[in-house]
Amino acid sequence: MQVIQKEFSLKPRSRGFHIVTEEILSHIPEINDIKQGTANIFIKHTSASLTINENADPSVRTDMETHFNIMVPEDADYYEHTFEGPDDMTSHIKTSILGTSLNIPVTGGRLNLGTWQGIYLCEHRNHGGSRKIVVTIIGI
Amino acid sequence: MQVIQKEFSLKPRSRGFHIVTEEILSHIPEINDIKQGTANIFIKHTSASLTINENADPSVRTDMETHFNIMVPEDADYYEHTFEGPDDMTSHIKTSILGTSLNIPVTGGRLNLGTWQGIYLCEHRNHGGSRKIVVTIIGI
Amino acid sequence: MQVIQKEFSLKPRSRGFHIVTEEILSHIPEINDIKQGTANIFIKHTSASLTINENADPSVRTDMETHFNIMVPEDADYYEHTFEGPDDMTSHIKTSILGTSLNIPVTGGRLNLGTWQGIYLCEHRNHGGSRKIVVTIIGI
Repeated sequence: MQVIQKEFSLKPRSRGFHIVTEEILSHIPEINDIKQGTANIFIKHTSASLTINENADPSVRTDMETHFNIMVPEDADYYEHTFEGPDDMTSHIKTSILGTSLNIPVTGGRLNLGTWQGIYLCEHRNHGGSRKIVVTIIGI
Repeated sequence: MQVIQKEFSLKPRSRGFHIVTEEILSHIPEINDIKQGTANIFIKHTSASLTINENADPSVRTDMETHFNIMVPEDADYYEHTFEGPDDMTSHIKTSILGTSLNIPVTGGRLNLGTWQGIYLCEHRNHGGSRKIVVTIIGI
Repeated sequence: MQVIQKEFSLKPRSRGFHIVTEEILSHIPEINDIKQGTANIFIKHTSASLTINENADPSVRTDMETHFNIMVPEDADYYEHTFEGPDDMTSHIKTSILGTSLNIPVTGGRLNLGTWQGIYLCEHRNHGGSRKIVVTIIGI
């Protein structure tokens, strides 16, 4: 039984939804040694989140951004917490809806994702900067 | 310390929210050997999701479907990704809101769920077909 | 490799979003022995949930409550499951949106949270009472 844990930063992304599967994997080559287990991928922030969705057509990512901006509107007048601008409180809400960790099976040295699944960084701030990630793989 | 990992398909379900706790457990009898640990239940898709909710009154499942259809409306005109019909992009969005994995404690050989908790398969497509699941149990 | 598992109840909270990081940690002093691993924090209910968000300004918690009450409105006429009042079905929906477990890396004997991250109990019922939690820490 092994634990592999790595902490690193992702390259800064613009506001929106971005596929980061390969960038994350580049930080954890040790995954190749794990035959069966799980990977916890955790983002150490409250205004950016992680999700799994389609890894092919880019319009999934832009439609995701469009929908979340409508479901959590920046021009609503009911937010108190807007010190850092209209994308402040909305980013906190989007983060809690999407979540701050992914938990993915590891099988035969690889993330056992479905054919169409990729890992998205969801950058909710207009200027979020680099985001810190912790990956913890537990398995045999 | 043990890792038990199983990959299998669920029976196809109609669009909506369905309790699948017993069907999942039928694939992992080995859970009985785990005194303390966790179970990761992962769905390998981007248009169906997993959640935990009430295992009793069926109106919880139908109200869940009604609410998600209103919160993520198929007749909105702002989606670009609709090649496979009006339930295409909405299914991706619902999947990211609800999530693709559950992580449940295992205690005394059983999923340590609350009295009223059951596992739901959330089938967001009109014709989703059979859905692939990976369960990974880690524990002693 | 170790598994530490504890089951306990949180003090009852009023409806809304509440920081419970310290109360949870007070139940798992054994975390200090874990150098690298993960903690699964699971809530055994279908009308209260767990999320991670900002641990500083209280207006994040009140805005969160305000937004969820608008996104999942109690005065909608499309719910069937309202036997226990207008906060019945809405609590189930909010629970599935926010989720029933958190999975957080453990590093050097501590939860490896970001500077601004805290654990929220999201109490969706008007009178929810005490909520049961199971924490499972797996690591070396």
